[in-house]
Amino acid sequence: MRTVPVPVDTRGAVLDQYLLDETGRSGRRPVGVAAAAGVEEVRAIVEWARDTGTPLIPRGAGTSLEGHLLARGDELVVDLSPADRILDLAPGDFTATVQPGVTRTRLNAAAAEHGLQFTVDPGADASLGGMAATNASGTTSVRYGGMRSNVLALQAVFADGSVARLGRAVRKSASGYDLRDLLIGSAGTLGVITELTVRLHPIPEWLRALRISFPTITAAVAAAVDMLGLALPVSRLELVDAASMGAINAFRGTSYPVSPALFIDLEAASGAAASADESEILRVCRAHDALDIATARDHSARHGLWEDRHTLFFALKAAHPGNRFLVTDTAVPLSRIPGAVAAATGFGAELGLAVSVAGHIGDGNVHVVVPYRDATAEAAQRFSDLVVRHALDVGGTATGEHGIGLAKKRYLAEEHGTAAEIMKVIKRALDPGNLLNPGKVVDI
Amino acid sequence: MRTVPVPVDTRGAVLDQYLLDETGRSGRRPVGVAAAAGVEEVRAIVEWARDTGTPLIPRGAGTSLEGHLLARGDELVVDLSPADRILDLAPGDFTATVQPGVTRTRLNAAAAEHGLQFTVDPGADASLGGMAATNASGTTSVRYGGMRSNVLALQAVFADGSVARLGRAVRKSASGYDLRDLLIGSAGTLGVITELTVRLHPIPEWLRALRISFPTITAAVAAAVDMLGLALPVSRLELVDAASMGAINAFRGTSYPVSPALFIDLEAASGAAASADESEILRVCRAHDALDIATARDHSARHGLWEDRHTLFFALKAAHPGNRFLVTDTAVPLSRIPGAVAAATGFGAELGLAVSVAGHIGDGNVHVVVPYRDATAEAAQRFSDLVVRHALDVGGTATGEHGIGLAKKRYLAEEHGTAAEIMKVIKRALDPGNLLNPGKVVDI
Repeated sequence: MRTVPVPVDTRGAVLDQYLLDETGRSGRRPVGVAAAAGVEEVRAIVEWARDTGTPLIPRGAGTSLEGHLLARGDELVVDLSPADRILDLAPGDFTATVQPGVTRTRLNAAAAEHGLQFTVDPGADASLGGMAATNASGTTSVRYGGMRSNVLALQAVFADGSVARLGRAVRKSASGYDLRDLLIGSAGTLGVITELTVRLHPIPEWLRALRISFPTITAAVAAAVDMLGLALPVSRLELVDAASMGAINAFRGTSYPVSPALFIDLEAASGAAASADESEILRVCRAHDALDIATARDHSARHGLWEDRHTLFFALKAAHPGNRFLVTDTAVPLSRIPGAVAAATGFGAELGLAVSVAGHIGDGNVHVVVPYRDATAEAAQRFSDLVVRHALDVGGTATGEHGIGLAKKRYLAEEHGTAAEIMKVIKRALDPGNLLNPGKVVDI
Repeated sequence: MRTVPVPVDTRGAVLDQYLLDETGRSGRRPVGVAAAAGVEEVRAIVEWARDTGTPLIPRGAGTSLEGHLLARGDELVVDLSPADRILDLAPGDFTATVQPGVTRTRLNAAAAEHGLQFTVDPGADASLGGMAATNASGTTSVRYGGMRSNVLALQAVFADGSVARLGRAVRKSASGYDLRDLLIGSAGTLGVITELTVRLHPIPEWLRALRISFPTITAAVAAAVDMLGLALPVSRLELVDAASMGAINAFRGTSYPVSPALFIDLEAASGAAASADESEILRVCRAHDALDIATARDHSARHGLWEDRHTLFFALKAAHPGNRFLVTDTAVPLSRIPGAVAAATGFGAELGLAVSVAGHIGDGNVHVVVPYRDATAEAAQRFSDLVVRHALDVGGTATGEHGIGLAKKRYLAEEHGTAAEIMKVIKRALDPGNLLNPGKVVDI
């Protein structure tokens, strides 16, 4: 390793930190960890990797949920967290240019000084480079889209050592092939992202949050779809099922109805518009037999309402002590959501697993959370498989926002058919030596 | 040509119809025109083309503005206009699946029966396949995005004859490489689009249109940027300069102030929200010294207001009889719009050309229209070149929505640098025989 052009950490205790990912999946020790603070280091590492035939695993904040970052043992990890400079913040253009190691909360803190925000919120405080690499999205995607809608331009180092700018920092372009979107979601297998220009959006002046309980999942979903059909300006539209509401009650000491609920954020450009839109939402919910309605207008009430939703995973952990957790990530056409939830509930009952549902309902992206122990680990895997196959059967995708990584690779061909072969053609053309995050997304 | 697997028209009078495109640019006669009504015909034609080494030009409604469809002489045109079936309309999913020859107005007529609309509006009644191939956008992109934001999935035939589905009909997916967006904007050079699933959006119940005059372009742009900064729900935000307003007055018999104006559509989910948002817009405009404000609430008043804007090109034609017209298509960062307009005005004065500006201001996409005759054709080309180079210098793109085609090819390397080389790698990998629309976008 002496010839690596940047300092490389090869201490066993350090390498052991890379054995597990956030979900508890395990890989092998990488050969070392190289810290890169900018494009020049990345380029030098990639050229060295090409010369020595050493595969690379680019890494940001390490919050991947699908094994994107696990090593098979011969890779050098390229740690991009030192590449953490905000290079430019241009409020007049509603853009920011950042290095890939900048986390979304850091960018948001800087943008907030100008009344602006970066709107992609996957929950974890992920790095922006990692979020682009996995095409992350989250609760606000129903209004603002995911990374594809919010990355205007990238800089990346390709496997041959070339440094390229993909796209320009403009809101639209019809110039040439869309290499930017090819890199977004490629999980570091086609190039290493070294710079991003992202869109910023104004922080809305008027926000309302609502929590509304419904008698059934079907009623909650129907109300959500009606809100979309009326083009109501919701920026979050989250479904939480009865089991999850029970866990929240137990964890937070609340006494909400233990029945399916929607958590909603509403944004408006004036107080009058906010009130008018809120009335419309309430009208829709009542038409779908809403059981209980809570609205929050001021900052602290909104914060409390969303805290209930955001602590859901911790609530489930508390409800199932000693368990590990599997989280599904399928997305289906909107009309298929009730069927997908019913199918998951059925699979859980069959396999003797507790099932909790939390979904980005406006995107059709449903997370089913299943606690398991060693004895039920196989059942949990079987559950995940059944949920994915059900989604694929109804025209959905195996992963709405977590990515393929290692964990969902087996579904790539099933989901994409011939297109999975074309993905391999692209990987071979851009990384013929299979040096960039090998074995993730596609095998060549 | 006897072995082509579908009927081919080789009559000279028919082939002559393919010599010119909408802008008056000329190519050569193709060898024939094959009509394809579906994926099976396209696949058979592509396989025949591969076996015989015959290049293909896929064609929809033929409304390209950048020479995408012009032949060099040895190509077979694949006319997809007979592939015009709406295969599925799913109001509950807010999607439609169509063949590529369906035009946007036909889709909109079908969607309207369900209170839905397809929102990408490039002006021309283009085919949806062609719009995807050129990554079209238009007046409504400020709210709804262009084709990338509205195409969920594609089916395409690749140069090796394989038929692949790119993406699934869901609102988000993080599965595999984004081949869908690679095909969108590739102008038929990477694959022939044979099916599209697109997003539909609800037709808003409450619409307001406004026409507001300002003393200067700078004031108009500042007002527009403030509307974006306040997240006001505008779905159209168009800049029309003083010269264009004068042409509209002459053509329509109106007497609007001959000064820069914004044309705005505002959408809301309730009448109260519409009124509140309209008040906010007016407040912003007055703060930027608005000279004259017209608002339109009912359908016929809105229609009349937008008719003024939509007939602008005809108004300019009437103002400059006997001229042909050049239309630039650069997009720049928002803060660069006033500078780009000032630069274009300067270039026009230098070159002795009349300059009119109509811009999708919320996207930074400015069209400058220049009338010319044979004697000034060279000056017009020089003007176009200066405008593009200015846009590239300030971080913009040569083409916001019309595409590279043949006409903007010279700027591809200048705009993309190393990335233009990577585009060639992709073209070579997917179409090694250079059979699909050869010479367009990239040369290999």
